[in-house]
Amino acid sequence: MSAPNTLTATEIARQIDAGTLSAEAVLRAHLDRIDQRDADVLAWSHLARDAALEKAKALDRGPRKGLLHGVPMGVKDIIDSYDQPTGYGSPIYKTHQPLADAATVALARDAGAILLGKTVTTEFANRFPGPTRNPHNPAHTPGGSSSGSAAAVADYQVTLATGTQTGGSVIRPAAFCGIVGYKPTYGHFPTAGMKANTEWLDTIGAYARSLDDIALFRAALMAIPYRPIEAPLSPPRIAVCYTHHKAELSPEGRAAVESAAAALAKAGAKVTEIDLPAPVSDMTAGQKTLSAFDGPRAHADEARRFQDLLSKSLREDKLAAGAKIDHTAWTAARRLGEHGRAAVDALFDDIDVILTAPAPGEAPVGLGFTGHATFNLLWTYLWMPCVTLPFTRGPNGLPVGIQLVGRQHEDARLLDLAAWVQGALR
Amino acid sequence: MSAPNTLTATEIARQIDAGTLSAEAVLRAHLDRIDQRDADVLAWSHLARDAALEKAKALDRGPRKGLLHGVPMGVKDIIDSYDQPTGYGSPIYKTHQPLADAATVALARDAGAILLGKTVTTEFANRFPGPTRNPHNPAHTPGGSSSGSAAAVADYQVTLATGTQTGGSVIRPAAFCGIVGYKPTYGHFPTAGMKANTEWLDTIGAYARSLDDIALFRAALMAIPYRPIEAPLSPPRIAVCYTHHKAELSPEGRAAVESAAAALAKAGAKVTEIDLPAPVSDMTAGQKTLSAFDGPRAHADEARRFQDLLSKSLREDKLAAGAKIDHTAWTAARRLGEHGRAAVDALFDDIDVILTAPAPGEAPVGLGFTGHATFNLLWTYLWMPCVTLPFTRGPNGLPVGIQLVGRQHEDARLLDLAAWVQGALR
Repeated sequence: MSAPNTLTATEIARQIDAGTLSAEAVLRAHLDRIDQRDADVLAWSHLARDAALEKAKALDRGPRKGLLHGVPMGVKDIIDSYDQPTGYGSPIYKTHQPLADAATVALARDAGAILLGKTVTTEFANRFPGPTRNPHNPAHTPGGSSSGSAAAVADYQVTLATGTQTGGSVIRPAAFCGIVGYKPTYGHFPTAGMKANTEWLDTIGAYARSLDDIALFRAALMAIPYRPIEAPLSPPRIAVCYTHHKAELSPEGRAAVESAAAALAKAGAKVTEIDLPAPVSDMTAGQKTLSAFDGPRAHADEARRFQDLLSKSLREDKLAAGAKIDHTAWTAARRLGEHGRAAVDALFDDIDVILTAPAPGEAPVGLGFTGHATFNLLWTYLWMPCVTLPFTRGPNGLPVGIQLVGRQHEDARLLDLAAWVQGALR
Repeated sequence: MSAPNTLTATEIARQIDAGTLSAEAVLRAHLDRIDQRDADVLAWSHLARDAALEKAKALDRGPRKGLLHGVPMGVKDIIDSYDQPTGYGSPIYKTHQPLADAATVALARDAGAILLGKTVTTEFANRFPGPTRNPHNPAHTPGGSSSGSAAAVADYQVTLATGTQTGGSVIRPAAFCGIVGYKPTYGHFPTAGMKANTEWLDTIGAYARSLDDIALFRAALMAIPYRPIEAPLSPPRIAVCYTHHKAELSPEGRAAVESAAAALAKAGAKVTEIDLPAPVSDMTAGQKTLSAFDGPRAHADEARRFQDLLSKSLREDKLAAGAKIDHTAWTAARRLGEHGRAAVDALFDDIDVILTAPAPGEAPVGLGFTGHATFNLLWTYLWMPCVTLPFTRGPNGLPVGIQLVGRQHEDARLLDLAAWVQGALR
């Protein structure tokens, strides 16, 4: 029998339901794993060992609570929790104890999830990194900004975790850590209680080690009925898209997309290569304009009162740069988004899903730089649902994934299509 | 000389700059007014008398801080402040002291504004009212949900105040209290640090007793350069729009729009009556779908842990109703918004501004019901900038205003056009 910390949430829920596993046993297996590995991975900014264990015991005494009954969950420490400190990756908030749970935390608890702890985020989900290491090789970054969530799920320290993506902060760490990452259509997971970075882009997302778990977690986080994933019976139409950043792909990143495309065509998919319509080529820049403009505004209080406690990177790359951006450039970027989204939506008359890279390639060496979001910025700003699937390994033996991008609002369909892709690539 | 609490912010800034008035004198005049009137109006959920006075003295000792140097400001108590309690209009948060200022609070302080206090909001900016009374007649509602901000500015207890609008919560109270209210294009004022009600609709807005003050306040709250209002030299093209809710206008509400339209035509404007394009007739329902759907999600923590501390109105009209809405209805409402906004935007090839009612008519009698948002919901969901201008009086002697609605993102132009309208109506 597999150790309970290596099971999926779907399997944990099934076994607890069948009476063959207890929430306490699941929780203890995760705590054991954390005991072994925490010093190497450093994924947690706060661990609630005792409270989580008490909660597991209480769940074992009571009736089934919901979809996630007894499933341990990590929450990126940019998202509020009423009973655990929430530091936003900044010394300014080291004493911060919110009075309320963020919506996604409360909804997951409603479904029976156990909040095992808060996971390391970069400073305010920007660039300045935390201590977390890639569980596949501690000399490499796990990616950011959802560093701790991706690393903890990949390392079997927790079953599910939430992250947030403003640039590439859910999809990229999933690729670097070799797990499934899901960034929903903008606005699908409620953001109440998440520390704002960039309105218009901030999207809460999810990590798991299986697609089925993403579907389960998604239903809980949206408070919608759960429908298990069903891969379509006939092969889908897949559009391979290297974006206008093709030259920035590393050899292993490009090879992964090419080899996945070939395998999917062999499995019967109608695979074509597409160029994105005209407005989209400016959307990477548009994303940067929105994000920079919001910097000195969303962080106005921290900039005003705690300048010395901000990283140099935040002060210079975000606050100083953002203060130079004109409001008319911001409104132009907002209009660009509308045009770009409409143009890309029209593509879906002829395609089912886009296949692209989730990151340039393997996780870079070192912990100071969390990697380029080049293959994420435009999808984030297109508000389209994205999934990272683990696929292969790169020259350093680190995970290299692929990214699937679906039509806006058709998130459930994207997960179904991803299941077809995963089946075809096996 | 006018008492300093009756001056506009623009005038206060000018006189403080000229050395003919001190921030302390301004603040004391407001405190005197509050002493006289607070028991009748009950606009404040927290007053920072001493801290505000200390701040005024400190400003008088230092150099000019910015656009709002020495101007007293009220902030709707749905918006966080680091040094004043923030109750969100709910007993759940009666001990709540945020660690940080919301973005709009910090930006206003950056510009030299003095946070005089937090103003009464309905429960979580929904329907359940606070104690505030209409300063023109205490038997009538000031409107909601930004009840305290509108009443305090109208009653000369503070110079400027912020509010929030998800349905009609900035524009309607301005009309009921006889002041200028401004709801920007969705997303123009940063919402970081505002308690979420409905993503996709929540918009921070501003109250003042003059249009010039709105322009000044706006520049501070967006951290953009200040450009004083300039009314256009030639008369604009004005589209009168009763919306598909015309039958719900009270006689005085309809008469105000008709008489304003006639006066503006006489002043040279090209006045036409328009019907809104097809998708818009469903946008009132679309607004309600979005708002209801978000209810049990944005308030998931309060619903989970503090059910007994929620009003019956919130539990039934928002949480229970919202739980019944299917996610596909929500995505349909989101798509409707995209179509409606594109359709209305196209109208502006032939018109400059829309003239409509800000509310059905005068403020209703009683404090239990804050009035219908019928003439606000669709504009909120169209994300278009709106301004209430005080205009006339109704059968009970209470204020009746008009509402001007501009093209999305062209907020500065809307204020210029509003100045032309105000000049023509004088």
